[in-house]
Amino acid sequence: MTKSNVIKIGLCGFGTVGQGVWKHFARSRAELESRLGVRLEIGAIAVRDLARQRAVKVPARKLTTDPMAIATDPRIGIVCELIGGTTLARKITLAALRAGKIVVSANKALICDHGAEIFATAREHGGHFFFEASVAGGIPIVKALREGLVANRFPQIYGILNGTCNYILTQMEERDEPYENVLSEAKALGYAEADEALDVDGWDAAHKAAVLGWLAHGIWVRPDQMIVEGISRVTPTDFKNAATLGYGIKLLAIINRDFARNELTVRVHPTLLPEGNVIANVNGVYNAISVTGDVVGTTLYIGKGAGQDATSSAVISDITDAVALLRHGKGVHLTSQLALPSDGGVKLAPLERIRCCFYLRLTVQDQSGVLAKVTSVMAKHRVSIASVIQNPSGVKGTASLVLTTHESDEKSMRLTLRQLSRLTSVVDEPLLLRISEFTD
Amino acid sequence: MTKSNVIKIGLCGFGTVGQGVWKHFARSRAELESRLGVRLEIGAIAVRDLARQRAVKVPARKLTTDPMAIATDPRIGIVCELIGGTTLARKITLAALRAGKIVVSANKALICDHGAEIFATAREHGGHFFFEASVAGGIPIVKALREGLVANRFPQIYGILNGTCNYILTQMEERDEPYENVLSEAKALGYAEADEALDVDGWDAAHKAAVLGWLAHGIWVRPDQMIVEGISRVTPTDFKNAATLGYGIKLLAIINRDFARNELTVRVHPTLLPEGNVIANVNGVYNAISVTGDVVGTTLYIGKGAGQDATSSAVISDITDAVALLRHGKGVHLTSQLALPSDGGVKLAPLERIRCCFYLRLTVQDQSGVLAKVTSVMAKHRVSIASVIQNPSGVKGTASLVLTTHESDEKSMRLTLRQLSRLTSVVDEPLLLRISEFTD
Repeated sequence: MTKSNVIKIGLCGFGTVGQGVWKHFARSRAELESRLGVRLEIGAIAVRDLARQRAVKVPARKLTTDPMAIATDPRIGIVCELIGGTTLARKITLAALRAGKIVVSANKALICDHGAEIFATAREHGGHFFFEASVAGGIPIVKALREGLVANRFPQIYGILNGTCNYILTQMEERDEPYENVLSEAKALGYAEADEALDVDGWDAAHKAAVLGWLAHGIWVRPDQMIVEGISRVTPTDFKNAATLGYGIKLLAIINRDFARNELTVRVHPTLLPEGNVIANVNGVYNAISVTGDVVGTTLYIGKGAGQDATSSAVISDITDAVALLRHGKGVHLTSQLALPSDGGVKLAPLERIRCCFYLRLTVQDQSGVLAKVTSVMAKHRVSIASVIQNPSGVKGTASLVLTTHESDEKSMRLTLRQLSRLTSVVDEPLLLRISEFTD
Repeated sequence: MTKSNVIKIGLCGFGTVGQGVWKHFARSRAELESRLGVRLEIGAIAVRDLARQRAVKVPARKLTTDPMAIATDPRIGIVCELIGGTTLARKITLAALRAGKIVVSANKALICDHGAEIFATAREHGGHFFFEASVAGGIPIVKALREGLVANRFPQIYGILNGTCNYILTQMEERDEPYENVLSEAKALGYAEADEALDVDGWDAAHKAAVLGWLAHGIWVRPDQMIVEGISRVTPTDFKNAATLGYGIKLLAIINRDFARNELTVRVHPTLLPEGNVIANVNGVYNAISVTGDVVGTTLYIGKGAGQDATSSAVISDITDAVALLRHGKGVHLTSQLALPSDGGVKLAPLERIRCCFYLRLTVQDQSGVLAKVTSVMAKHRVSIASVIQNPSGVKGTASLVLTTHESDEKSMRLTLRQLSRLTSVVDEPLLLRISEFTD
């Protein structure tokens, strides 16, 4: 191979993921070069601080503090945007795409907020945008949906998309510890960010659900068009109640398409899942995705959803696909670069029409007649009760009342909830969880 | 799009899978055409009997009884070999590849027996050979190993690769039914072939393990270079014993690479798997594969491993990749068509050196001193006992003796077994199962 046969890669951002890509790329480079028939080189790396000591040693001549210089450098064919955030990351991504480069990204927030603009820019300028690492870390779910399952339409996709939440929920359940304690530990261990809101309030999972929804249905769903609820109000008692009822609790993203009505719903919320379900048994920082296709049936994908190594594996896979494209002309639209499924005119269904069974936990005054009041509110909104569990609440003079319902809709349930929280005998804000009967 | 923009597909074989491909291709064609920017047509179908009534209706002008005519027809760009077997299937495959076509196949026996010849022929004549459907049906595991996990080396891959065996084992366990009864039912239901040997003796799983081994390690391992044992001697009692010990029983294919010694082993055998392991809980006709990569860690893939629909999904995915190739020049070696990993000089380790823990069930004369005789044979071969369970055998005058061992090697265990079966107090051929401690 001659000198001109070198494809150069630029890394914008050299934090955890960037250093992981450098490290694992160094190890696998010879093998990749032999498979691809071309020499590969990480030619430039944009960092914030040239002087900082890093675990990974890199020649000083490769370092720059100007990511935009990498995005527009004609010698660089592939730009990995590993900065995060949506402002500078967007500028760099668009600049690289306008220069006809291939951009590799793990940035779900960016894709979720600016995906339409990014893909339009790529298409207009003959660039490409690869994003395997943006959903479910090392699990090749983007490739599976887009290529491996291309024969399918997808009535249902659901799963655990946020490893931090799954770690916290698993620890709460296994050790009977309250949310706040486990969250503090998770922060100390580096499993949760200093500002945990993006993870624990469900927004990170919502970003990933938006990416999956677009891959599967060709439509961008904004988080404000989804139900998005986090895990902070789940307690160890809820795990015990759920177990009594035969369920585990997981933060799930759920994407449902009703092909008869041609409607789509996307939601992220803590969910009671039958304990025999495989995903109910996926614990710790693992992610898991169940994909139901109309041809293949249900397939399931499990693996580490984040972290330096898993994310690097996905980024290097994208780099390899990008190299194959660059070798044979960027204009080539491979399967991995196909137009996405046409949206087929699909509409978002009103969220209040979503139907499921519910789990409702109330803290009530420990006196007679309260259950009658609660159940009469539910009856008024035609919410039918499936089971009742009454426990001491731990606070003198109050009791914990857990009700599960038969299938109802979000609207009825929200009205019920509003009225219940106004009852004087209900002494704390009610907790509402949703129950799914997914068996695989 | 003009007439000349049509890519024609030929189906050789129109049984269960062929009819499934026709049916699902008809449904998804418009969508695929829109994504790929080309018209697609199943142009010819080779059948054995032109007059046969089929569930799927096809224009008579598309039918032929001559699959070789399809393999060599210059108007056909993609040939799907769905005949099965290894004689005619090989001829058709080689003829199509020599004509520079792309061949799509679900035929693991063919790949296992003639893979080296097939891939060499494809390379020589600029054709391509796609085989996603050959392993694990609808699960896109070939694409995952080859593209999604391209950054990884694979110390361990294992899983359930034969849905028929998994169905039989699941039924035996759940209903406490002997093997023979469940097998008869499975045949009646169409879940097992009239000649069941390929499935239940482990050969089908061995073929698939050979394909995975080649994908992951660039080396062809023949079934006679593997340990291959089937499920026919497992009894409901073994499930009970395994459960007592905290295990389930699955027919697993296990591919281990020791990178320090640079050695590979491939084996297929019924395996005791810790009951908390996700794969231990994959039941019925489902397949499941655990892939451990040195970068990504362990990822897991679960789905239907066979059947008309799941297999069709994989075949249509391959057709789509093939179309993308044909659109842009067959010479383009995409990621999906890369040279495989170099074998890196890996050697097959002698099978007798494989180490694991064992489960040994003996039917013995119900008299004192037998356990002493058995354990002294084991001690002689330095096989250390971990646990002993003694049960009535169900036959008067005999007892069932189950021993588990600490880690030992195949050689010591085989010598032990040979000597044990010569003891007069051992009245039936011993059953040896292997125990794995895989936790994910």
